[in-house]
Amino acid sequence: MKATTRPEEESRPVIDLALFGALGDLSLRKLYPALYHLDREGLLHDDTRILGLARQELKADAFRRRIADTLQTYVKPAELDREVVKRFTARLDYLQLDFANAEGYRAITEWRGAVRHDTVVCPLVVYLAVPASLYGDICRNLQAGECLDELSRVVVEKPIGYDFESSCEINDAIGEVFHESQVYRIDHYLGKETVQNLIALRFANPLFGTQWNQNHISHVEITVAEQVGIEGRWGYFDRAGQLRDMVQNHLLQLVCLIAMDPPANLDADAIRDEKVKVLKALQPFSETKLNRDVVRGQYIAGTIKGKSVPGYLEEEGANRESETETFVAMKTGVSNWRWAGVPFYLRTGKRMPEKLSQIVVHFRQQPHYIFDPDQRNLAANKLVIRLQPEEGIALEVLTKDSGLDRGMRLRRGPLHLDFGSAFPQTRIPDAYERLLLEVMKGRQYLFVRRDEVEHAWHWCDSLIAAWKEMGEPPRRYPAGSWGPVASIAMITQDGRSWYEDY
Amino acid sequence: MKATTRPEEESRPVIDLALFGALGDLSLRKLYPALYHLDREGLLHDDTRILGLARQELKADAFRRRIADTLQTYVKPAELDREVVKRFTARLDYLQLDFANAEGYRAITEWRGAVRHDTVVCPLVVYLAVPASLYGDICRNLQAGECLDELSRVVVEKPIGYDFESSCEINDAIGEVFHESQVYRIDHYLGKETVQNLIALRFANPLFGTQWNQNHISHVEITVAEQVGIEGRWGYFDRAGQLRDMVQNHLLQLVCLIAMDPPANLDADAIRDEKVKVLKALQPFSETKLNRDVVRGQYIAGTIKGKSVPGYLEEEGANRESETETFVAMKTGVSNWRWAGVPFYLRTGKRMPEKLSQIVVHFRQQPHYIFDPDQRNLAANKLVIRLQPEEGIALEVLTKDSGLDRGMRLRRGPLHLDFGSAFPQTRIPDAYERLLLEVMKGRQYLFVRRDEVEHAWHWCDSLIAAWKEMGEPPRRYPAGSWGPVASIAMITQDGRSWYEDY
Repeated sequence: MKATTRPEEESRPVIDLALFGALGDLSLRKLYPALYHLDREGLLHDDTRILGLARQELKADAFRRRIADTLQTYVKPAELDREVVKRFTARLDYLQLDFANAEGYRAITEWRGAVRHDTVVCPLVVYLAVPASLYGDICRNLQAGECLDELSRVVVEKPIGYDFESSCEINDAIGEVFHESQVYRIDHYLGKETVQNLIALRFANPLFGTQWNQNHISHVEITVAEQVGIEGRWGYFDRAGQLRDMVQNHLLQLVCLIAMDPPANLDADAIRDEKVKVLKALQPFSETKLNRDVVRGQYIAGTIKGKSVPGYLEEEGANRESETETFVAMKTGVSNWRWAGVPFYLRTGKRMPEKLSQIVVHFRQQPHYIFDPDQRNLAANKLVIRLQPEEGIALEVLTKDSGLDRGMRLRRGPLHLDFGSAFPQTRIPDAYERLLLEVMKGRQYLFVRRDEVEHAWHWCDSLIAAWKEMGEPPRRYPAGSWGPVASIAMITQDGRSWYEDY
Repeated sequence: MKATTRPEEESRPVIDLALFGALGDLSLRKLYPALYHLDREGLLHDDTRILGLARQELKADAFRRRIADTLQTYVKPAELDREVVKRFTARLDYLQLDFANAEGYRAITEWRGAVRHDTVVCPLVVYLAVPASLYGDICRNLQAGECLDELSRVVVEKPIGYDFESSCEINDAIGEVFHESQVYRIDHYLGKETVQNLIALRFANPLFGTQWNQNHISHVEITVAEQVGIEGRWGYFDRAGQLRDMVQNHLLQLVCLIAMDPPANLDADAIRDEKVKVLKALQPFSETKLNRDVVRGQYIAGTIKGKSVPGYLEEEGANRESETETFVAMKTGVSNWRWAGVPFYLRTGKRMPEKLSQIVVHFRQQPHYIFDPDQRNLAANKLVIRLQPEEGIALEVLTKDSGLDRGMRLRRGPLHLDFGSAFPQTRIPDAYERLLLEVMKGRQYLFVRRDEVEHAWHWCDSLIAAWKEMGEPPRRYPAGSWGPVASIAMITQDGRSWYEDY
């Protein structure tokens, strides 16, 4: 059965939002601010109501005050509008709930009856801002408490499990209660403007669309560099490692959007079918390839922006013998007609010199070169899609150097599409704003389908198994560097280099 | 024999420049300011000397003062450097000469002997800033006066004749004295930074290079609009008309640079061979096509920027019965493998609403369209190359509209390569600076070869003959409009429109 997609859309559909984990970090930092912004932009229906659910005992009024305070912290002062805060917090209610106790869930339906003064049919959206271990219980109890109908939707956050098997358990538990067309798995990278812009760039622009294949693209680079380290969650992170934490979801999602064949339309399943095809075609790593094409790293003490920071094994709560990777770089590819022979170089790590997420699509060089030979190395077009720190798109073209004494010398001239400066009137919405709005509208194209999660895990699992087999410890790299030297060598041996125009 | 091109270059070669027409309009407005700028940028060799030649009696000192005054008028105050003016005018000498009298020319050689204190070999560059009717006499007299050797070069200005036959006469007269490799025919459009940038854009950027053909480009537009009218030269212009005055040289040169196949290298003849191929492949106009695909216009009185201006037939010195065109628009094409089926829409006219020269390359639309149907008309990439009023290049791409309530709506986002703002430190040199520098360096690639002139005339002549045959008067258009309505209809009937983002 196909998911229902792109129905006649209400621009501001009414929903009841039940937010599990209403006092958790994600809710406070991301969800309330995002909902506030939607309200401020007139994108929340007047009748939309939000029920916060948590274990803590709290009066509704106190909850509203708490959220108002939260907004003070996480919304820019210039965007904080007293009237909107008042309107927004008036939408809030609070329910103390033991998530494991099915009986308590009936109160959700009671609350809905109480806030709905008219007979309007509106969906219940359940947002699970809680650990995945609770998903199963909550879903079952929602059903047992008769909270759900076919209009209901559930929003879940990554990580969906720890490997293929555990992801299946979680998805099975959700799937017992919700149909796939009701499930919204968030990868917040998909909510970023620039990531969505990839779809527009690729499929609305023949200039790029016709060149988007191995005939015209030489290689693709994706870097997701974090400047932060472990941030107090050593135990949690150490169990996962960078591959599971970043590659399995964010980087592979980016690979999918770059590499997918053009979908026949923008329906959620048309897009996701194409993404799954990419995940299925991801190159596996043979043992010989593993040595050459994958670099695992772990940071040691170093310096970032002049400040000394401890190594991974010296962080609070660290097990000194951990061999978990905090960095991974790999050369992989997509084995299909479009991408045969085009390397995808991926890297992601913690404690890098800066926070940077970018995709660089390198076009092939001209077959014949007629300008000054010493400028030959300049000669390739690049499309740079930056997600962080500033979202933006730049196309590197070569133009004539305008110096009079230069004759026909070339110069790299970026054509910038910087959202901030190109459209100064436009605030770039946070990924969660976009994603919450899409959930409300019932459009799944920015959410991850079950088979995507599973194919991504499948690929990662085989890599992890190969690592285990090999038994090599991660290579050390100083905090504040771009990772182990081997990750530079990996790309250099192909006569290329990581794009470094930060 | 091939012209000598790209020799080991001196960045500041020594030359002796003999400037015929030293007190004429072109010299005063363009040549001295350009030479001054070259001097200011350190691109004139210390020993380079300039000899002004004209009929008028004038002492060298008075001539130098006159040129210093001229610079006050035609160089921006911020770029006027007293020291450089002094240095520059010290290079000047003056010789009163009756151009028709061979005897007098010996004085040029005497002058060269007098200013050359050492034995350095330096070429004589003869710049003919005089009417073409004098070219023959001057060339012959230069030879008779033994001024020339194989290093000598001659620079001539458009127009080279009035039609194929008269251009041959002029070129024959020059050719009796100078080898083609010594002749520098100026079309100042070729000196514009943006025009040269076309070469870099096309041949250094695979992104454009691989799409530069009928598979990917739907049509090309070239507009050269003048805001001015006749400017006191009615008689001169009326004999020529807009086709001869603008299309035969400037517009066809632009067509050549857009349409030429990639040259094997940047040698002058490699480039010019390719340009000639384009001129030879220009579509001729059959009688039926003439009616449909060509629009001649003549302006009547109208308003430009709120100011009333007279019609062409009311200008000073006008013959009230003239049927000369002041506007021409045409749909033509290049009949070869690269451009089969791709219309080139050209238009140029006087008394247009603004001064504007631009080339717009329209890429084909995507074969399949997946975004909102009402935005379908947005969906094509364009490369806009602007020569006037501001030089710049913009690539129109479609991006996602960042408004939150927009879903996957598209927006036209120009990627700008505006030389002024992209490289604020860079002054855009005037076309004559570039061209004079290239003459000094002995590089011909920005100059028009004899066969280019001839093929261009050949094509124009056949069009003019067809017009005569047809005997239709030009269509009237009010000054301050974009030409006769028929020129709009000409492109509209193809389901297109003139690009109007001025």
